[in-house]
Amino acid sequence: MHKKIIDISVGISPDMLIYPGDPKPQVETIFSIEKDGAKVSCISFGSHTGTHIDAPSHIFKDGITVDQVQLNGLVGKALLLDFSTNGELITGSNLKVASRRFEHIPDITIILLKTGNFAYLDKSGAHWITRNGFTTVGVDSMSVDVPSEMMVHEQLLGNGINIVECLDLHEANEGVYGFMCLPLKIIDCDGAPARAVLFLDCFFQE
Amino acid sequence: MHKKIIDISVGISPDMLIYPGDPKPQVETIFSIEKDGAKVSCISFGSHTGTHIDAPSHIFKDGITVDQVQLNGLVGKALLLDFSTNGELITGSNLKVASRRFEHIPDITIILLKTGNFAYLDKSGAHWITRNGFTTVGVDSMSVDVPSEMMVHEQLLGNGINIVECLDLHEANEGVYGFMCLPLKIIDCDGAPARAVLFLDCFFQE
Repeated sequence: MHKKIIDISVGISPDMLIYPGDPKPQVETIFSIEKDGAKVSCISFGSHTGTHIDAPSHIFKDGITVDQVQLNGLVGKALLLDFSTNGELITGSNLKVASRRFEHIPDITIILLKTGNFAYLDKSGAHWITRNGFTTVGVDSMSVDVPSEMMVHEQLLGNGINIVECLDLHEANEGVYGFMCLPLKIIDCDGAPARAVLFLDCFFQE
Repeated sequence: MHKKIIDISVGISPDMLIYPGDPKPQVETIFSIEKDGAKVSCISFGSHTGTHIDAPSHIFKDGITVDQVQLNGLVGKALLLDFSTNGELITGSNLKVASRRFEHIPDITIILLKTGNFAYLDKSGAHWITRNGFTTVGVDSMSVDVPSEMMVHEQLLGNGINIVECLDLHEANEGVYGFMCLPLKIIDCDGAPARAVLFLDCFFQE
């Protein structure tokens, strides 16, 4: 079986970029091959470190936690749009224009936004995504929202749309891919680091 | 797109079962919705906690680390065999007999062993798996090896075969599935917690 996979996950390490105020990731050796016969490490990080998903409980008091998020919405055919030469805000009209040439492709359920890490959705962009029935939005920036705003989070998570942040999209061009994002199943948590991949030559059967 | 996914990952929480000596997982709230506008947690655990993969660097000084493990081998068609009524050791001859009725199915690259958490591979079992060209072995027990042994780890990891441990297979019956296991991309680490799933009604295109 031949599978071409693009890993679109950021590596987790002590010197990675983190969201201001979040804990610094740590990886500490606690058992070694020499002394203990096998190496084991202790790892610590924030729940929104590196490539991760936000659970509704990140911002809603009665929102579901990350272990309750259905994986179905995080798997499927994804449209990757490149806004890295766009302005700072991605609007509904930007999304409409950029997605036009992919309109003929059926069953796209996930939208990925390549921003070069300095563009954000505005309210109209979040509304366009909601109206068009996507199950998941993924971005390569630290947040789908302009820093210190939460409006887009509220619109998306409030409508049951998954948010994946801090993807590494630099190797992926605009186009349609198979997509899968699997977050750690951390009980009762507000989010979790995840591994996310694109498939080039295979799609999930419809 | 209809997808039936079985989540075969163990939940991570402070009261989960851990390997003797491993650090106790912790999940601590560091920002709250009330005070900070969004909930964020700090998480810590051992690199072999819950459903996880062992990197070759777990036992080999010059082995590759978990961020270097190719994801291709962790994705594909999997044969799940049920040894939960077997004796304590799964031998090559056990594997040969149990897999016979699936011999006509092409392109199986992954083998999953349901043990009810109290059966382990012996050396002949590990050799059978190596000889038959599997890319990944997954088990629902804490280890592929008898506790405190490392012989099966050496045989499998030494031959480039991925090891996935602590799967939750209680909802999955013997049979053939689409399988995907995505470990966290923790730089330079000896293993990493992962999310693993089975697909019932879709296979990766061949």
